[in-house]
Amino acid sequence: MDADLLEKARALADPAYVTVAEAARRSRTALFRQLLTQRRLLPQGLDEHTVRLLVDELAGLDANQFIDQANVGEREGRIYSELVRARHFGMAHGMGRAGDLAASQPKACGASILVRLCAALLLDALHVAGFRSCRRVALLPIATGMAMTLCLLALRWQRPAADRVLWIRIDQKACLKCIRAAGYQIDVLENKLDGDQVVTDMEALEKRLAASDPSRYAAVISTTSCFAPRAPDRVVAIAQLCARYGIPHLINHAYGVQSRRCNGLVCAACRLGRVDAVIFSFDKNFMVPVGGAGVAGTSPTFIEAVESLYPGRASVAPVVDLFITLLQLGRDGFSGLLRERERRFQRFQAQLAPVLAKHGERLLHTPDNPISFAISLEHTMLEGGIEPTAIGSMLYARRCSGPRAVLGTERRLVQGVLLAGYGAHIADYPVPYLNLAAAIGIRDIDIERFCRRLDEVLGQVRGTRHASAASAALGPRADPGPP
Amino acid sequence: MDADLLEKARALADPAYVTVAEAARRSRTALFRQLLTQRRLLPQGLDEHTVRLLVDELAGLDANQFIDQANVGEREGRIYSELVRARHFGMAHGMGRAGDLAASQPKACGASILVRLCAALLLDALHVAGFRSCRRVALLPIATGMAMTLCLLALRWQRPAADRVLWIRIDQKACLKCIRAAGYQIDVLENKLDGDQVVTDMEALEKRLAASDPSRYAAVISTTSCFAPRAPDRVVAIAQLCARYGIPHLINHAYGVQSRRCNGLVCAACRLGRVDAVIFSFDKNFMVPVGGAGVAGTSPTFIEAVESLYPGRASVAPVVDLFITLLQLGRDGFSGLLRERERRFQRFQAQLAPVLAKHGERLLHTPDNPISFAISLEHTMLEGGIEPTAIGSMLYARRCSGPRAVLGTERRLVQGVLLAGYGAHIADYPVPYLNLAAAIGIRDIDIERFCRRLDEVLGQVRGTRHASAASAALGPRADPGPP
Amino acid sequence: MDADLLEKARALADPAYVTVAEAARRSRTALFRQLLTQRRLLPQGLDEHTVRLLVDELAGLDANQFIDQANVGEREGRIYSELVRARHFGMAHGMGRAGDLAASQPKACGASILVRLCAALLLDALHVAGFRSCRRVALLPIATGMAMTLCLLALRWQRPAADRVLWIRIDQKACLKCIRAAGYQIDVLENKLDGDQVVTDMEALEKRLAASDPSRYAAVISTTSCFAPRAPDRVVAIAQLCARYGIPHLINHAYGVQSRRCNGLVCAACRLGRVDAVIFSFDKNFMVPVGGAGVAGTSPTFIEAVESLYPGRASVAPVVDLFITLLQLGRDGFSGLLRERERRFQRFQAQLAPVLAKHGERLLHTPDNPISFAISLEHTMLEGGIEPTAIGSMLYARRCSGPRAVLGTERRLVQGVLLAGYGAHIADYPVPYLNLAAAIGIRDIDIERFCRRLDEVLGQVRGTRHASAASAALGPRADPGPP
Amino acid sequence: MDADLLEKARALADPAYVTVAEAARRSRTALFRQLLTQRRLLPQGLDEHTVRLLVDELAGLDANQFIDQANVGEREGRIYSELVRARHFGMAHGMGRAGDLAASQPKACGASILVRLCAALLLDALHVAGFRSCRRVALLPIATGMAMTLCLLALRWQRPAADRVLWIRIDQKACLKCIRAAGYQIDVLENKLDGDQVVTDMEALEKRLAASDPSRYAAVISTTSCFAPRAPDRVVAIAQLCARYGIPHLINHAYGVQSRRCNGLVCAACRLGRVDAVIFSFDKNFMVPVGGAGVAGTSPTFIEAVESLYPGRASVAPVVDLFITLLQLGRDGFSGLLRERERRFQRFQAQLAPVLAKHGERLLHTPDNPISFAISLEHTMLEGGIEPTAIGSMLYARRCSGPRAVLGTERRLVQGVLLAGYGAHIADYPVPYLNLAAAIGIRDIDIERFCRRLDEVLGQVRGTRHASAASAALGPRADPGPP
Repeated sequence: MDADLLEKARALADPAYVTVAEAARRSRTALFRQLLTQRRLLPQGLDEHTVRLLVDELAGLDANQFIDQANVGEREGRIYSELVRARHFGMAHGMGRAGDLAASQPKACGASILVRLCAALLLDALHVAGFRSCRRVALLPIATGMAMTLCLLALRWQRPAADRVLWIRIDQKACLKCIRAAGYQIDVLENKLDGDQVVTDMEALEKRLAASDPSRYAAVISTTSCFAPRAPDRVVAIAQLCARYGIPHLINHAYGVQSRRCNGLVCAACRLGRVDAVIFSFDKNFMVPVGGAGVAGTSPTFIEAVESLYPGRASVAPVVDLFITLLQLGRDGFSGLLRERERRFQRFQAQLAPVLAKHGERLLHTPDNPISFAISLEHTMLEGGIEPTAIGSMLYARRCSGPRAVLGTERRLVQGVLLAGYGAHIADYPVPYLNLAAAIGIRDIDIERFCRRLDEVLGQVRGTRHASAASAALGPRADPGPP
Repeated sequence: MDADLLEKARALADPAYVTVAEAARRSRTALFRQLLTQRRLLPQGLDEHTVRLLVDELAGLDANQFIDQANVGEREGRIYSELVRARHFGMAHGMGRAGDLAASQPKACGASILVRLCAALLLDALHVAGFRSCRRVALLPIATGMAMTLCLLALRWQRPAADRVLWIRIDQKACLKCIRAAGYQIDVLENKLDGDQVVTDMEALEKRLAASDPSRYAAVISTTSCFAPRAPDRVVAIAQLCARYGIPHLINHAYGVQSRRCNGLVCAACRLGRVDAVIFSFDKNFMVPVGGAGVAGTSPTFIEAVESLYPGRASVAPVVDLFITLLQLGRDGFSGLLRERERRFQRFQAQLAPVLAKHGERLLHTPDNPISFAISLEHTMLEGGIEPTAIGSMLYARRCSGPRAVLGTERRLVQGVLLAGYGAHIADYPVPYLNLAAAIGIRDIDIERFCRRLDEVLGQVRGTRHASAASAALGPRADPGPP
Repeated sequence: MDADLLEKARALADPAYVTVAEAARRSRTALFRQLLTQRRLLPQGLDEHTVRLLVDELAGLDANQFIDQANVGEREGRIYSELVRARHFGMAHGMGRAGDLAASQPKACGASILVRLCAALLLDALHVAGFRSCRRVALLPIATGMAMTLCLLALRWQRPAADRVLWIRIDQKACLKCIRAAGYQIDVLENKLDGDQVVTDMEALEKRLAASDPSRYAAVISTTSCFAPRAPDRVVAIAQLCARYGIPHLINHAYGVQSRRCNGLVCAACRLGRVDAVIFSFDKNFMVPVGGAGVAGTSPTFIEAVESLYPGRASVAPVVDLFITLLQLGRDGFSGLLRERERRFQRFQAQLAPVLAKHGERLLHTPDNPISFAISLEHTMLEGGIEPTAIGSMLYARRCSGPRAVLGTERRLVQGVLLAGYGAHIADYPVPYLNLAAAIGIRDIDIERFCRRLDEVLGQVRGTRHASAASAALGPRADPGPP
Repeated sequence: MDADLLEKARALADPAYVTVAEAARRSRTALFRQLLTQRRLLPQGLDEHTVRLLVDELAGLDANQFIDQANVGEREGRIYSELVRARHFGMAHGMGRAGDLAASQPKACGASILVRLCAALLLDALHVAGFRSCRRVALLPIATGMAMTLCLLALRWQRPAADRVLWIRIDQKACLKCIRAAGYQIDVLENKLDGDQVVTDMEALEKRLAASDPSRYAAVISTTSCFAPRAPDRVVAIAQLCARYGIPHLINHAYGVQSRRCNGLVCAACRLGRVDAVIFSFDKNFMVPVGGAGVAGTSPTFIEAVESLYPGRASVAPVVDLFITLLQLGRDGFSGLLRERERRFQRFQAQLAPVLAKHGERLLHTPDNPISFAISLEHTMLEGGIEPTAIGSMLYARRCSGPRAVLGTERRLVQGVLLAGYGAHIADYPVPYLNLAAAIGIRDIDIERFCRRLDEVLGQVRGTRHASAASAALGPRADPGPP
């Protein structure tokens, strides 16, 4: 509907009321104009009705929703199910063209506008969250790991002599697999212990690089967001080494965007050293369903190379989810979520303290990890004679989702790499522990429920040496250790 | 979004694609303009996406969806549940003001426009369906019977001496109750038999009127749509009598709008005699959920009196349903539905013929009823020794919904009126029968399934004299006779 | 889906995960069981997903959604538009049968269950809100005023000699119209002034009743929720008089359910005197769209008489909205809303105080009205030389919705009744004022915005004697006085 | 809701109606049971209400929708926007685990069941469509081209010596890019001309393989679905050569599933030779939005290798779309779509014949291509002096989407490969032409509109030698040639 149509409506309602409605409509249209011209988060988030209007208007610019169309190609965006059509607002053509995920499509003008606008809003959100040096971000409707693989594939044609990736150990399967999927060998750099914290062994890294032929490395991969007691990698120092040795540097920033401290590290690394791309998840940072990843950086060239590597059109659903969410959040809403998370990170630890004291356990001292923390399980194991994983299972059966119990003594072969102390990111971590996170969107009720149930479980385990047999019966083992 | 915003979007997509999308958008806007200026059914129906855009745009003109509003009244259209909000497109203020159901509301400019536009579309639909003399239609979000009550209440202040309504017998409870609810006595005019048909006894009517004081009658109520073997009333002749005696005439046209023949009768009655209002159901004629009724007529004065009688604001939901449906139908779609119904009415009888022949039953000859027909159950009863209602139950248990079995010998007291042969609209109807309808939206599969299942049931009943006991166990008795 | 189907799913997912999901599913099913057996508000509200599951399950019990159905009746719940179908969850048959709004329908088993369950939840909500003596509540999908009309129509056959209603003055058009619609004369009882408050003139009432033939009165209508400076009627004393004189007593409790104090009055009136029915609005008390009213009372007989008077089936949409909202609220959520409203009622007045002081105005002292209050406009008028209604318009143009400016000197003829000082509920109210409300769902932002904008408007008016001309240009006049 | 809950509902509705509703509910539950146990397409498709019930029930098994959950991990499926939540039915966890796209997730039991059930239904659909030898299909929420890349990456570790892919020329950019993205050189095999058809040059292929070291080839890629005048590759013969030389064979079956003939070819190739994987698009074959691809084959091992290569969790949205669509289609619906497409393929050509005759053009004889066909533009070009691409633009401006005009003389460098006659799949194709398709879901109205508009355009072009200048102004150039 256009503004002039309201004129026609004057005959259908009291003209005085139409005048006021027109003014209100202009306020809404002014917000759309601001969005399309400034391309930044709106100061305040939009209500659902306004968001839907905008998305439906954009979707109406796609050819499959045109009136009076004759469709005689092989791909015309026909949708059989009305239920499916409705949930996608009628957008059927996905994003990208054969050539390029960021390219606009002749049959999907509306979706093309939506995707680029979303990229601009996401860039602004990264700035708001502290990654101020970011200049470009690619929207990829694939997993974070797959996005990492795509980055490595983009490097392949640039670095023909490379056959390996230098990987700073982080015990998550996808982190190894994304390298193997790209066809590279994995060169593991082990971490070191610093008090309770597992940190990057910078000396070993420097030695390794000095002793190698840099052209053999496709990239160094470091990580910001990780499970305590591992700390974020020292990405500034790593970036400086990569600059010195001329090796591409990819940062796995999976759920790091939600932390202003992590973004600060990444931002400094970009400014002071070499960072080719920073890869992060949509769902873990922006409270949308699993499905998309961002590849951000200070140099548009590499980001564009990654975008233009994806062969074909891709689902636009993850981008639409992000777009809607950023519109509903606005700048204030997003900042608010970031601040709340930080507050609850503190509150969570504070509320756990008495429970830990009661059961003789303690918070591991991991001051560098702003999202995740860990609690010891030493006495519980000694007294309860129970495996940490059994505690994970007991919590899971009590609808606590997320805690990961680590013994630290397991050896595992992952993607052809043998890792000692798997799960702990290091061999011989001194104590068994339970890992927890205060991630974006965590509620007070999550914290309260968890503290209560943990108290219950620890009490039960310590209350009887034979509890382990009983607890096994409580429920299935799940999230039983490192992913 | 307004047209000029697409200009801003040129930077976000290939401008050539934006140009084509703009043209397509203009086509859609042109349809909206056509709607708002001509206020008639569009030639072709709109797709769901376009309809939603229009409804959402209108809903955005209601104050409770304005951005930056301060609400300090006692009725501000706040909606607690997002699920509820979404299903009403955010429209919260209903329709009407204290004064008048058709009045526009200061807080609901969008809903007000929607309601008036819908009234215009409905008027056009009535014209399309053959009620060409109609000049005004009120949209009432109440049951057809309640709308009849409202018409009678509107007559009360005009006819202070009246204490009764002359009611041409039709055996449906709501038809009696709507008179009693309005506070009137019921003066029953019995029908007469004409072959298989039950028809208006015009001589008796004329005699009754001649013998009475017309001012004692608030109105005569006649009916078009009814269950065969009753035929539509002779509304033209009745209208002429009402004109002659100066008695208001209300036509119960409940599900008659779907039949061009019924509309033709009504149209002629309006032209040639006195008809104060024609009352019909939204759901039975326009395939929307139960909830609304129309009051139509050639004289706006009485229609407006009815509209302005309703004390308060009412749910706009039934009108929104009708609006959406009329937009999606368009003129062609609605005409098509009417034609299809007529074809299936013929086909239904044709497909039943061999089943009836096989079981020794026949189609009752009711040539004046264009929607409903009836089949005899004489042999089935004689041979099966079973009540017709048991046959209704057997069909119901086989998921046949709608057939009504009538014995014709029951006497019932309804709203203080004793009716002999209740269900048959007449005392002593000669045969028991099963009543069926081919109503708007009936599908071929309904007809096929029903013929097959009827064959089965008749076969089963006649196969055993003791079937009745067995069949009783098949399922509950439902729709067991006249409503 | 039934529980045993999850067994089949074990082959499709890790059985351990299915076990946990089964347990979680049982928790949800247990809530449904609790609802269906206890029929009271759940302690905590349900999430939207769970509510949708329940509503969809119930809707699936309606015949028009059965698989393999043959529909051969005249009313089969067919829905043309998928958009319409989806917004009603497929429920097409409305509520009630010819006989009775509360009767269950053979074709709409699911909707019938939903309606009765909703009535039980609403009854519990009334208890929670303080109307503890309530024993039965009818759900009517009509306006509050229309519900009042229906109550009066139900009384008609009980009180054949009655031709009038004793109406305790409240200046809202619908309150007069609902009496006229039912065909009764209006016998006005004027209020009296008590300090700033307009209150029931009990002596005058007693005199009037003593001097009349009680059988001439169909009912006395009193009101709880009203615009300050009118106070709620003294319903306990009125109920006692009605008991003494044997006159039915209907309480207009339109938006009074949201106030525990108002409910307390009503509850006491029922206990200590005669109250035939208490009529209230769904939308004003439960934050649902306009469309439904409740008729509550301690004696089921009269409530059932009202339910069974409505001739026909009615839209179930308002009941579905209420059902969803009550499920999402739960007992805690509803209590919380009530408490918050009370807090904001205090806060609103506190935040206004400095604005009023600055402009030489004051809060009228109306301690008995727990929802609405009023501020004087004396100095503003004297200094600004402006009509109060112009102030209403200026606020409306600034997106303040709800304030009603009253001069108190207007004489108006409404439904044949001449009312002096129309809008003020009394002749000669001493000061012009602006009426405000803190209704359920009011937000802090509403209060802040309003105080700021009022300050602006009062400043502007007093700043210039000629402001009135200018302000007239600001926007249309709306909500300009009494409704 | 479980069956036993209906028992509780007996008190809330007429028990007889509950009994019938129960029976109807059992019918629905029986269909769910059939789905979960047989895991094949249902004979008839389900209605939208039933599909939504099933999806919502499954979604309710995901941990983020559990009641009473404590979430303390870093990835908990929190969704900020209710609009986003609703469109995904609350499913937030995507599909797959770190290890494997087909693995079930502890936090997403419902989504895991849905994915596996969908894979089973898709397998059945492939059987129905003629690919009877298929034994396993992977669901990948990525583009067809990206799925091809993933297949090549899965081959990398199996064939360490390989550095190239033998590519049978098909002029679509994504077909080249998917090879380069995987890091391989492209070894082009040119096609040959056979009458009007462009066909596989089997002799050249055999020679090439005989002359090479097979271990250098990662794979041969052939294609079934392609734009006429190119014919589907001779996949049976190619599969036999691949078997002989021990080279993996990947078939690009992008939009071939919709053609029973194409499926027949693929099926025979699998049976008679070597086919490692058949890659196809969800959106082009099943009328869902862009977003997913299937990788099918007779040997589960390779398919599973591809599934387990994807590093991370992926969007489940494309699978949900496919699931819903397959449920709504059922076996009959899907077969019907396939048959209708074939009929319309014939009808399209028949309706074009007179238009072509009128303008001196002809249908190219391409009997082997069952989806796409082409019409000559020879006279139009000669007489009109206009480029074929201008004709494409003129049609596009008239809302004909899909036709691709090919001159056949362009040379283009794509992904480092120089292709003569780009767009025509061969150098020196003798005539310029316009390519058209009758793809699944094509409607009669598409055909009629296109024939009318083509007639118009050809008439206009031939009417004036200078038309080209004018037509250029008609609209942007789009879909101007080969993709």
